Amino acid sequence: MLLQPIVNLVEILSRKGVHHAIISPGSRNAPLTIALVRHPAIETLSISDERSAAFIALGMAQNLRKPVAICCTSGSAAYNYAPAVAEAFFQEVPLIILTADRPKEWIHQHDGQTIYQTDIFGKHVKQSFEIGADYSHPDAIWHIERTVNHAVNLANTFPKGPVHINIPLREPFYPLENEVVVSDGNVRVIERVETSNVLSNEVWANLLASIEQYDKVLIAGGQNEFDPDLTNILAKLQDEFNFPVVGDSISNLKFNLISNQDVFLQQDAENLAPELLITFGKSFISKSFKTFLRKNKAIEHWHLSLDNHLIDTFQSLTKILPVQPLYFFSKLLEEIDFSQFKNGDDEERSSDYLDAWKRNSFKANNYLEHFFLENFHQHQLNEFYAIKKLLDALPADSQLHLANSMSVRYANYIGTDPTKKIEIFANRGTSGIDGCVSTAVGAALTTTKRVYLLIGDLAFFYDRNALWNRYMPDNLNIILMNNHGGGIFRIIDGPSKQAELDDYFETVQSYTAEKIASEANLEYFNAKTVEEFHQLSIAFLQPNGKSKIFEIETDSKYNTEIFKKFKAGFAL
Amino acid sequence: MLLQPIVNLVEILSRKGVHHAIISPGSRNAPLTIALVRHPAIETLSISDERSAAFIALGMAQNLRKPVAICCTSGSAAYNYAPAVAEAFFQEVPLIILTADRPKEWIHQHDGQTIYQTDIFGKHVKQSFEIGADYSHPDAIWHIERTVNHAVNLANTFPKGPVHINIPLREPFYPLENEVVVSDGNVRVIERVETSNVLSNEVWANLLASIEQYDKVLIAGGQNEFDPDLTNILAKLQDEFNFPVVGDSISNLKFNLISNQDVFLQQDAENLAPELLITFGKSFISKSFKTFLRKNKAIEHWHLSLDNHLIDTFQSLTKILPVQPLYFFSKLLEEIDFSQFKNGDDEERSSDYLDAWKRNSFKANNYLEHFFLENFHQHQLNEFYAIKKLLDALPADSQLHLANSMSVRYANYIGTDPTKKIEIFANRGTSGIDGCVSTAVGAALTTTKRVYLLIGDLAFFYDRNALWNRYMPDNLNIILMNNHGGGIFRIIDGPSKQAELDDYFETVQSYTAEKIASEANLEYFNAKTVEEFHQLSIAFLQPNGKSKIFEIETDSKYNTEIFKKFKAGFAL
Repeated sequence: MLLQPIVNLVEILSRKGVHHAIISPGSRNAPLTIALVRHPAIETLSISDERSAAFIALGMAQNLRKPVAICCTSGSAAYNYAPAVAEAFFQEVPLIILTADRPKEWIHQHDGQTIYQTDIFGKHVKQSFEIGADYSHPDAIWHIERTVNHAVNLANTFPKGPVHINIPLREPFYPLENEVVVSDGNVRVIERVETSNVLSNEVWANLLASIEQYDKVLIAGGQNEFDPDLTNILAKLQDEFNFPVVGDSISNLKFNLISNQDVFLQQDAENLAPELLITFGKSFISKSFKTFLRKNKAIEHWHLSLDNHLIDTFQSLTKILPVQPLYFFSKLLEEIDFSQFKNGDDEERSSDYLDAWKRNSFKANNYLEHFFLENFHQHQLNEFYAIKKLLDALPADSQLHLANSMSVRYANYIGTDPTKKIEIFANRGTSGIDGCVSTAVGAALTTTKRVYLLIGDLAFFYDRNALWNRYMPDNLNIILMNNHGGGIFRIIDGPSKQAELDDYFETVQSYTAEKIASEANLEYFNAKTVEEFHQLSIAFLQPNGKSKIFEIETDSKYNTEIFKKFKAGFAL
Repeated sequence: MLLQPIVNLVEILSRKGVHHAIISPGSRNAPLTIALVRHPAIETLSISDERSAAFIALGMAQNLRKPVAICCTSGSAAYNYAPAVAEAFFQEVPLIILTADRPKEWIHQHDGQTIYQTDIFGKHVKQSFEIGADYSHPDAIWHIERTVNHAVNLANTFPKGPVHINIPLREPFYPLENEVVVSDGNVRVIERVETSNVLSNEVWANLLASIEQYDKVLIAGGQNEFDPDLTNILAKLQDEFNFPVVGDSISNLKFNLISNQDVFLQQDAENLAPELLITFGKSFISKSFKTFLRKNKAIEHWHLSLDNHLIDTFQSLTKILPVQPLYFFSKLLEEIDFSQFKNGDDEERSSDYLDAWKRNSFKANNYLEHFFLENFHQHQLNEFYAIKKLLDALPADSQLHLANSMSVRYANYIGTDPTKKIEIFANRGTSGIDGCVSTAVGAALTTTKRVYLLIGDLAFFYDRNALWNRYMPDNLNIILMNNHGGGIFRIIDGPSKQAELDDYFETVQSYTAEKIASEANLEYFNAKTVEEFHQLSIAFLQPNGKSKIFEIETDSKYNTEIFKKFKAGFAL
């Protein structure tokens, strides 16, 4: 007999909107596996490598904007989830982690697949729950039902994030033959009603007064999912009311009049220093931007965040506004619009500060375009150039995943055409290279859009188990920049001068993806020259209902030379 | 300038006997990397995938019987160590885990590669240390030196195990050009003198009196490294004084007159029930053996362990003897020998109980040999048969690594010829499939013996990054039993009857190792028929200075049929 409370637990997950689960095979988690697989409203995948499974779930949850469940057996399996759990925590992506466990009395008794699973993810889950091994006492059943409700509610509450339920199970793990596995209909669903945090009129009046006091008000967005409403409002604040709005590629602010700050903020630009800085979202990629704001500290810095944690990325925070960006900027727009309507044009904010940002942005953009035009006509193939060409050619409404290390940095310099509305993802919660392929696979499995992954060879091979499954989507397009090592270490100053560069920093490696592509049944293209690159780009970008890998092999030393030239050449 | 206390930290490691380090590339850990690589007495390897790196270190430390250091950058890198750290903890293998970190003030501030690293391995390290980010105050330097001494001392004290030092570092990370990186000679080494736990004459007298009181005294060994002295003493206790000694393959008790208990204890064997059970070592593989001892509880059960943790694997423990097995059994042998010498032959222990074990062992062994003879002459290729043939043919003085899931179970039924003194390893601390290849690679890198790895396809592909490095040894021989899925789930009763068998338990997968072998430059053999198997076995077993993979493709259903027949056919 399968444990009815486990079947009911899964029913509660489903009623609370969890409709996707990734299961890694095991015996201890068999009751959960069977309950999940047999639930008609839950779609399940089976992925053997738990590390990859959890990152695939992350990619799915990002796209679905709903929690995805992951389920594994007892023992070290759960630890393989940890890198993705940490990423989900800092990126605020909801995951429901279901780890089967042995009952407490069997822990640390030299019996198989048993480790200390209680609180195993430390501070990297919003909460870690644990139920008892008793599935019969009414209070135990109440505890299980309550726990699942609590866990899903928490995962869905801002800041969203992963929650862990550790589930001790005793044998038998399997239903009888022909047993019907279905919830008994008496499950309890405890809804947590959604609320909106709003600010009082008094607070608004104070905020508006502060804003009016400053000529230089800068709005900056960190990592954020694409939100067309928010984007439109911010565009109006910039275009109609002269507030410059800046964001990295992963801020997904698609109007993007100001861009290339990564280029022009390498140099001192004191005139751009904000008096009031208003930020929202999560991490920023651009080191120049962070350094600029830490050096030129705003007089006031307001950060919009529903997180209780105090995050002071620019070392200038003065006020936390625990409200949603959409609410804040909509209301701000209304209030400023109304005040201007009331007071006429003399209340209008000067465009000087915005113009200064725009001028630099324009100059940097010009520099970038000219750099590519001038440097790459009949040269050796170079990764910066190849990325520029491919990003420029990406189709509208596709998704772009940027792997960590150089990929996300190159792409942040180059950007994508804002009118194409390409949503950009990157594992910038922890900035690891450990799950970039898996995350893109998860994304591709949950959208009909074309998903592009830009990735270097170390990150690609590190996570190649991402392609070891039976669910390969047909819309995944991997752009693999293979310079046979961690090129970033040659580019940054410190390690490039050390004797250990090749072996211990760049970590030279000889693999190409050809064999992996063939194993995983992906179309494979390989370019080593400019000519091959141009020719194959066309085929690669042409949709044909198959997932693909475009491997671009370049020389790390030449890449470094070009990139250093690019960075050195810009002058304000 | 490289931080002198970091250089000194590495010097202390070396002076305290840590001469091997595995580094995973990163920037934050660059000071450690450079100090380790430039230390003349430390051998370093660079392995990109931290999960694999830590398991390779585990395999090295098992073989060296000394701590191996692992060193990674900040962020999720450390979490990828966790599966191997848990394995090392429960298997009591010493590792020195050096994780670079950001200084405390940068944690959870939306800046790159930063997670909560303090105590990240939970209860799976003997202790977690953390130093400050200040490397200049004399007290800070005292703290660093003291911490490294403490950490290595702990790792080396029984029960051995992993220790973690979290090391926050600020920029700059790199030495100047031409800077000499060398310890300043003033490092402090704080030795912890080794002791032996001994028992008083009074305790011995009591123990001996207890032993004499029982006719049925059974000695059983859990997982243990091969120790010829211990083996000889136990052999004498069995052969000359009639105490049966039983152990799984991983107990490495190479005299092994009693074997095949996995076979004969499937059936009720009440006459074998011990009155006094004396155990040592760590986990037991055989479920039959564990069930037998839990059902037929000894009147007294003594367990030899220096661990403060109370481990009661057979639910019968009455006495903990915190002494080394070698001391205990040597002294026991002496005492019994002396008492017999004093009292003459009438004190001699009857051989009835030992004979009962021997009879069953002999019967089971006969059954096993006949089963293979009768069933496999002109049949389809079967994994049980292939494993039997290969294990029988392994060369003397080689090492055998058994991957988890079916490999370790099959091998435990079959055993190896005790006279060949093949040392057997398996990740039975947590019994995960997550690092079995890496562990074998680590072993092969630290011995000139031939290292054999017996592994199934799921475990092999899960950990294939083990082969993604530039240090492939030439003595690694992988026997890959590819039944294209987790065959164990078809063999055990519960899942084999479920509709979810193929997809969610067995997890059917189509990969073969051919491409991986070619990428990693390993010789590759593939057998699908009995004829191919016999022919290729010869070539595979012939040493030629190259590492090899012998992939044996079999049908999961047929394997199950044979194995069920084997299990059902034995009668006492």
